[in-house]
Amino acid sequence: MKEAKKPLILLSNDDGFDATGIGALIKILRPIGDIIVVAPEGGRSGSSLSITGTVPVKYNKEYEEEGGKEGSDFGSLTVYSCSGTPCDCVKMALEFLMPRRPDIVIGGINHGDNAATNAHYSGTIGIAIEGTLKSIPSVGFSSCAFSNEEDFLRLDKHICHIVKNVLKNGLPEKVFLNVNFPDHFPFKGTRICRMGMGDWVDEWIERDHPRGGKYFWIAGSFKSFDGHDETTDIWALNNGFVAITPITLDFTAYESFQFLKDNGFEG
Amino acid sequence: MKEAKKPLILLSNDDGFDATGIGALIKILRPIGDIIVVAPEGGRSGSSLSITGTVPVKYNKEYEEEGGKEGSDFGSLTVYSCSGTPCDCVKMALEFLMPRRPDIVIGGINHGDNAATNAHYSGTIGIAIEGTLKSIPSVGFSSCAFSNEEDFLRLDKHICHIVKNVLKNGLPEKVFLNVNFPDHFPFKGTRICRMGMGDWVDEWIERDHPRGGKYFWIAGSFKSFDGHDETTDIWALNNGFVAITPITLDFTAYESFQFLKDNGFEG
Repeated sequence: MKEAKKPLILLSNDDGFDATGIGALIKILRPIGDIIVVAPEGGRSGSSLSITGTVPVKYNKEYEEEGGKEGSDFGSLTVYSCSGTPCDCVKMALEFLMPRRPDIVIGGINHGDNAATNAHYSGTIGIAIEGTLKSIPSVGFSSCAFSNEEDFLRLDKHICHIVKNVLKNGLPEKVFLNVNFPDHFPFKGTRICRMGMGDWVDEWIERDHPRGGKYFWIAGSFKSFDGHDETTDIWALNNGFVAITPITLDFTAYESFQFLKDNGFEG
Repeated sequence: MKEAKKPLILLSNDDGFDATGIGALIKILRPIGDIIVVAPEGGRSGSSLSITGTVPVKYNKEYEEEGGKEGSDFGSLTVYSCSGTPCDCVKMALEFLMPRRPDIVIGGINHGDNAATNAHYSGTIGIAIEGTLKSIPSVGFSSCAFSNEEDFLRLDKHICHIVKNVLKNGLPEKVFLNVNFPDHFPFKGTRICRMGMGDWVDEWIERDHPRGGKYFWIAGSFKSFDGHDETTDIWALNNGFVAITPITLDFTAYESFQFLKDNGFEG
């Protein structure tokens, strides 16, 4: 009997190829398919869908392991680091580093959640946007847990269920999943959510430079506008549910067309 | 008679504070209000909504001019450069550099269009997203014209009309305008559009490093999927119309909820 071809999985993240979160994701997904990791050399939090334009980009093969080792059913694993952004990693992978078009593109597991409008800043979500732009089913996984000591492996059943489901059923055209896990285990369940609205306040920390002048670190705290609303991802996370927020590539504000026409923007 | 307070306008871009495009925007808007520019030190194309997390951010005052100079009706002008991304510039401006909350946040004029899914990568659009996250009416202006020798001043009437209109009527909640100008003047009119879909192909240029190894520059060409469709911004630009694409901050793919529920993602 000929063995069915294993799914080919492209992984990336924005915390760096050697972060705990992506390490857990690799372990969780090894039984499911062949894995190619193309992830940044180091931390790239807040990369959004940025690309590297002013300096060249390089990649380096870090690790390679064949599938079926020691009689296991595991797929193969190849890990590349890349000097660019998460989006660069996906573009680099698809043009040079994949033996064929992957069956799924996955970002994560991000250290820290990407719920609500934080998704806009997120490199993890950038990975899923780029995968979706290439018409490949894509998912971003993030956890409210932040520490490198976090046991992300406890997310295995939830991640396997979602990835297998996407591999089996696909996703609607132009849509990917932003999956966020709450801090406290076990979870109460999984909810399909809308993106909550919110914003950051006190966004900069000021420091004196030892040789004069000031410099600033981005920081701040997130203020939810609608976390009380049970339809939001923020509510789901705050109440112990895994939040799956489907995101569309089409950002058009269709419901505003009439306002713009009524107010003389067209003509 | 007491003079009415002039509108306060925050400008940024992703081509650098001294680019031709933002220079034209300043000239075009001086008669309309007081202007504060906070823009990157140099080019930051493809910045999306990225923030700078791994190095600190600084700003520098480059230029200052009072309003009403030589009896003109012009507003004041203050220009800052910033070491960070376009999004950092907006965050820095709002926290430290504005005398009060601005009446409008404007990105541009970008050298090169940000139509269709290119908006996802755009620092110009990042500026408008950040302004909208702060609940300030926001607009991104981009032109298909790319060169630093381009006469962006010919866009004056169109830009003034749109900016005055936004200042007067505001914009729907969570919505900003992505305005793209065609290459050839005069324009046939202005259309309210949806975001076209498309993707990039042949995205990397490979070079040999003089001391061994390879490096890569991001490049490629854009392939429109639906530029034949008259409702898209791509069609408008290709047919000589100014394209106004309203964009929402809420990227939720509401129409996919049923698919996800039907396929066992919730529970």
